Amino acid sequence: MHAQRRARLNLQQLQVDAFLISALPNIRYLSGFTGSNALLLVRERTAVLLTDPRYTIQAATECNCTSKTIKSGPLTSALAPELKKSKIRRLGIERNRISWATYQALQQSLPVGVELVALDDVIEKLRMVKDSSEIEAIRASVLLNSKAFSKAIRRFKPEMKEFELAAEIDYQMRKLGASGPAFETIVASGPRTALPHAQPGPQPIRNNQLLLVDMGATLNGYASDMTRTLAVGKITAELKRMYQATLESQLAAIDAVKPGIAAGDIDAAARSVLRKNGLDQEFIHSTGHGLGLEIHEMPRLGRSGETRLEPGMTITIEPGVYREGVGGIRIEDTVLVTETGCEILTPTPKELLSI
Amino acid sequence: MHAQRRARLNLQQLQVDAFLISALPNIRYLSGFTGSNALLLVRERTAVLLTDPRYTIQAATECNCTSKTIKSGPLTSALAPELKKSKIRRLGIERNRISWATYQALQQSLPVGVELVALDDVIEKLRMVKDSSEIEAIRASVLLNSKAFSKAIRRFKPEMKEFELAAEIDYQMRKLGASGPAFETIVASGPRTALPHAQPGPQPIRNNQLLLVDMGATLNGYASDMTRTLAVGKITAELKRMYQATLESQLAAIDAVKPGIAAGDIDAAARSVLRKNGLDQEFIHSTGHGLGLEIHEMPRLGRSGETRLEPGMTITIEPGVYREGVGGIRIEDTVLVTETGCEILTPTPKELLSI
Repeated sequence: MHAQRRARLNLQQLQVDAFLISALPNIRYLSGFTGSNALLLVRERTAVLLTDPRYTIQAATECNCTSKTIKSGPLTSALAPELKKSKIRRLGIERNRISWATYQALQQSLPVGVELVALDDVIEKLRMVKDSSEIEAIRASVLLNSKAFSKAIRRFKPEMKEFELAAEIDYQMRKLGASGPAFETIVASGPRTALPHAQPGPQPIRNNQLLLVDMGATLNGYASDMTRTLAVGKITAELKRMYQATLESQLAAIDAVKPGIAAGDIDAAARSVLRKNGLDQEFIHSTGHGLGLEIHEMPRLGRSGETRLEPGMTITIEPGVYREGVGGIRIEDTVLVTETGCEILTPTPKELLSI
Repeated sequence: MHAQRRARLNLQQLQVDAFLISALPNIRYLSGFTGSNALLLVRERTAVLLTDPRYTIQAATECNCTSKTIKSGPLTSALAPELKKSKIRRLGIERNRISWATYQALQQSLPVGVELVALDDVIEKLRMVKDSSEIEAIRASVLLNSKAFSKAIRRFKPEMKEFELAAEIDYQMRKLGASGPAFETIVASGPRTALPHAQPGPQPIRNNQLLLVDMGATLNGYASDMTRTLAVGKITAELKRMYQATLESQLAAIDAVKPGIAAGDIDAAARSVLRKNGLDQEFIHSTGHGLGLEIHEMPRLGRSGETRLEPGMTITIEPGVYREGVGGIRIEDTVLVTETGCEILTPTPKELLSI
């Protein structure tokens, strides 16, 4: 599987003899290694993973390529002999995944005659379209996440604190086998729902208020992402109107998802429904994003998104409306782009739920 | 508090007119902002935070400096007018916290006459010595972490799966008010304890085996870190000897902690005890690391650590011994360097516990 992915990398076309992969999710994608410190040098036919002694056994077990342990010093210091051995002249590096400091250190430690070639988003673009094993992993993560949501919500009682509900959510994820939340679980209630990235606090979740939950699990390395906004008891007509408009906007965006459409057009579909309802000024973020080994991947579904959707992409659709001092609504599913349109992976219902 | 920290930054000495902070923990340290997307421009007397619309309300609440919302495009695109307004000529940037791609983008977007100055670890070095509010935050995080450990261990039953115990640990942390684990909780049993960074798996934790738990909480942004190795039932004499040697090594390293000593000497103290026991070849990582807003901070307590300890530093002391196919032992506390030596913040006992 990982060797097949490496085979999709066309080094000739990239005009390099080898490609130094430094971003951990990209390393995992190409080699299977799940540790926290490594470099992967991909050559025409072979690859070698460099890591430190904490990961010697793990690398040997996980990687389907050679792995070498660097006993001391930075991993970059072990590159020179590898490059000499394979007679590398042009070495690709991940320009936006390597710090300026590491770039400079590399330049100084390379053998004479080796040239660094800046490459942008090469692996990230390969990763946009998921292979079948990835789609199954994401599907499983999404199902687990929805199951954890149901279980946690069943344990909800009014006056529970925001962070207690967040704890319950994360616990249910873990009990179902997730390695943890894919991002810090968001639980916000009342007017705090107007903060799109509210951290759960000691506030009790009171009756007759909104409750917003944005959660994702990591299962076998793959992320899921879902947002639901609920009514605790009764909510005002103003909030109900905001909810219906957001839901209509989310459904319109999902309806637009199909191969060939530009990411920006999905965003436009969501925004146009909110405009009709006079709410587009209160939709202050983009409509969604790809997800997979990372919670935020390409493509970004924003106003200027030019990426054309392809079957096998997994993206979130999550318009939201935020009114300071009043409250915020966001509704988010994970969807899979298919040959004919899309499949909504998230099974959790979206009609306004009152608990 | 944050203004006082900014005041410790001597821009004149750094030979810059302003300093662009891009690492989120450094931004939090200097401004109080806890969101996930921002840049902080620090000038001689004032500072301005740039963020996106998701964080407008949050930035206004959290920051004790001006904050500005950038409605679209990368945050760096909003820098030019700020720099012109303040007549900045020399702009410091965090060389190892900025990607090579961002560095290049900055260079292209800057007003004519502005020069980028590479700065290394400036804020990270300020952050090594904690102020009193930080020490209290770390102390609280460490206490919470130990409490969560006790509660989770009380719920342990033989044949429980590794990931179930990890779930229990994270749940107890959250219930006690942590925002989550500071890193992916490690629960390993039997021979898997020989993997220093084992991910909790579906393996049942069996009787008469080792159980290693490495866990840390994040509370109010501050990390804690503790490892304990337990015996489930009875363990072999070989493992008991490894345990006693590791404990002796850990105590010797703690004993060496005092102001003025080099980080490398703490590492040497730990290593020398293991050498006497013929186990130093099986100690395959460094002795510890600083912690605070991040789980791994300066100083690193490795062989070549030259940083001299100072009162107010918070560090981990965590020697370990790993024998492939047999098992691994690690014992880790968080300690605070004081005027006269150190205070062990972690209250959890270290004698071999059999459960």
